[in-house]
Amino acid sequence: MNSKRRRELIDVYRDGLLHDTLPFWLQHGVDREHGGFFTSLNRDGTVIDTDKGVWQQGRCTWLLGELYNNVEPREEWLQLAIHGMTFLDRHCFDPTDGRMWFHVAQDGQPIRKRRYAYSECFAAIAYGELALATGEAYYRDRAIQTFRKFVDHNLNSKEAASKFTETRPTRGMGFPMMTIATAQELRQSIGLEDANDWIDRSIASIHEFHLKPDIECVMETVGVNGEILDHFDGRTLNPGHAIEGAWFILLEGHQRQDPSLIETGCQMLDWMWHRGWDPEHGGILYFVDVQGLPVQEYWHDMKFWWPQNETILATLLAHLLTGDDKYANWHRQAHDWAYSHFPDAQHGEWFGYLRRDGTISSELKGNLWKGPFHLPRMQYLAWKWLEKDFD
Amino acid sequence: MNSKRRRELIDVYRDGLLHDTLPFWLQHGVDREHGGFFTSLNRDGTVIDTDKGVWQQGRCTWLLGELYNNVEPREEWLQLAIHGMTFLDRHCFDPTDGRMWFHVAQDGQPIRKRRYAYSECFAAIAYGELALATGEAYYRDRAIQTFRKFVDHNLNSKEAASKFTETRPTRGMGFPMMTIATAQELRQSIGLEDANDWIDRSIASIHEFHLKPDIECVMETVGVNGEILDHFDGRTLNPGHAIEGAWFILLEGHQRQDPSLIETGCQMLDWMWHRGWDPEHGGILYFVDVQGLPVQEYWHDMKFWWPQNETILATLLAHLLTGDDKYANWHRQAHDWAYSHFPDAQHGEWFGYLRRDGTISSELKGNLWKGPFHLPRMQYLAWKWLEKDFD
Repeated sequence: MNSKRRRELIDVYRDGLLHDTLPFWLQHGVDREHGGFFTSLNRDGTVIDTDKGVWQQGRCTWLLGELYNNVEPREEWLQLAIHGMTFLDRHCFDPTDGRMWFHVAQDGQPIRKRRYAYSECFAAIAYGELALATGEAYYRDRAIQTFRKFVDHNLNSKEAASKFTETRPTRGMGFPMMTIATAQELRQSIGLEDANDWIDRSIASIHEFHLKPDIECVMETVGVNGEILDHFDGRTLNPGHAIEGAWFILLEGHQRQDPSLIETGCQMLDWMWHRGWDPEHGGILYFVDVQGLPVQEYWHDMKFWWPQNETILATLLAHLLTGDDKYANWHRQAHDWAYSHFPDAQHGEWFGYLRRDGTISSELKGNLWKGPFHLPRMQYLAWKWLEKDFD
Repeated sequence: MNSKRRRELIDVYRDGLLHDTLPFWLQHGVDREHGGFFTSLNRDGTVIDTDKGVWQQGRCTWLLGELYNNVEPREEWLQLAIHGMTFLDRHCFDPTDGRMWFHVAQDGQPIRKRRYAYSECFAAIAYGELALATGEAYYRDRAIQTFRKFVDHNLNSKEAASKFTETRPTRGMGFPMMTIATAQELRQSIGLEDANDWIDRSIASIHEFHLKPDIECVMETVGVNGEILDHFDGRTLNPGHAIEGAWFILLEGHQRQDPSLIETGCQMLDWMWHRGWDPEHGGILYFVDVQGLPVQEYWHDMKFWWPQNETILATLLAHLLTGDDKYANWHRQAHDWAYSHFPDAQHGEWFGYLRRDGTISSELKGNLWKGPFHLPRMQYLAWKWLEKDFD
């Protein structure tokens, strides 16, 4: 990647973040009446559901704090991060068990809790950024407590696995991946003491149970001992998710200056690029079957925004860390496909849900799952990585 | 619809059932080792997941019993119905609470129970057909008990609503619709004593809470008093499901010789045809928003097999009961679209999952949701209705 291309890409990512993505959400998504953020927005930014996703409250708060701490200390960003955190803190924890809700009404009344605890991850990293931004011990303590809640719930709660009986226990990539990403963020923001231990443990778990060199694949869901389960759920791969995991590990390899981690991350990316890239229409498919059999999930062949964001990040970082032109080429392919299909030239931000052929299936800009996170995180990290000297 | 068209259609439906759909499932789906039926079949009938859906065990058993009782007493059908029932009876009930599982392993070990109790509906109608076929009191008693379990669970169990908190309680079309269909079947098979009461109550509930003449719409999910909830879930319509409900009510109108029920069924069909028929590509869409806003479910614009089956039945019955040519035209449209996109000329049966434009998204012939039910039920009922003199 030559320096001209680097400068062009920096402009695309930085300007996209600061002049498109962030203004879209800050203009349309701030609830001045009840606090927190709306993310269920139509194409033009109109709020089409006033309910609030708890993931998105944490993610948007984290993003604003991260930008305040690492891009520039704009007072508006800090005040909006505090605005988000106030809503999270007041309304998004269930006082009966301390766990977080998944979905609340506009005024914060609870609608739904889920058996897993990802709300806690996003809240933890949001607390972490506010601790760094304000120096307040309260935020630091809450960041640590909320991270502990997440890992305890996943390791010790029966509820976390309660969707299924004990007949065929499984192990998913979600928990170790979220642990890595959350610990990385908390190490950076509050210097979380045991961050490295959690990261080591999680990478070891992915290595031991999910990476399958014999078939060159990252398995999303396996038996408790890493067995491949020859059923729909066990065969279903989530290439965008595995590729996201790849860049978490690449980043850790860079942080630790550990070539074996960089090798692992590249391997995961290589395998899952080949499994997930759609040779017919381009873009990363949502789900594919490890044996090429039909997938049960109905949206398997759609192109969602976030697997493209994660692939752009992973290929870019792999190239910057290894210098391998293969990754620069993949980055160009992923970047070009995404930028020619997802951005909404008329109202800004990205569409989220395309059909396999790249046509728009839904004009939604956000919902309980899509909000100011994957796209701006990609724009922010890719911009910063491209400005950095990795050598 | 002239008599030539009727004869042609009878051939299509009858021969499709007896020479295509049924042989496909009986050749590929019978588990001679552990009992019960496989329904997770690939395009050519290969079993690609040995797990068993409990709905499908009941549905396939019901179908075989229904055909034995109403088409012809083929010993093979009766023996296979008993084969299915033995598996259901032995493996599909949780002894700890008497409720049924949703998903079991090949040998019957439980994998998953769900908070709703539709497994019970399909088991109840299967028991009913076996009671009629064999005269055994055991089957009759089990049919009644299992139906009672279903209604008790839905009316009295907190678990049935436990996915969400009490903040915004809702009411769905599923429970009254399944109650009507199950009671209709049990009235026919075992003369269920209070069948008419349950049907009356369920139709009254649909009338009171789900039919909205002011906006000409059948709402799938409403507040407990029938309020339209202006959130994603509340706005989401399921036209194929409402159209299925329409023919349940049309059939009841015919059975009771009650013109007001026929009027209600036609009204539901009229409203939901206009909302659900895809004017661009044809076929019934899966979900649409009552206000035309984006739908949250990712597969909203796909064409699944079953909404087409239900629309073919509803339009046919509406025409046969009213003589209105509008319904004959809609029937032709629905029939022609479905028959030009879903049947697999090479391996038989129908594909289940098409994209909006009618191209194939998945070649699966079955899974935990698609099995020998909607298509053969349509073929069987449409054939029998066309042979009948409704005047």
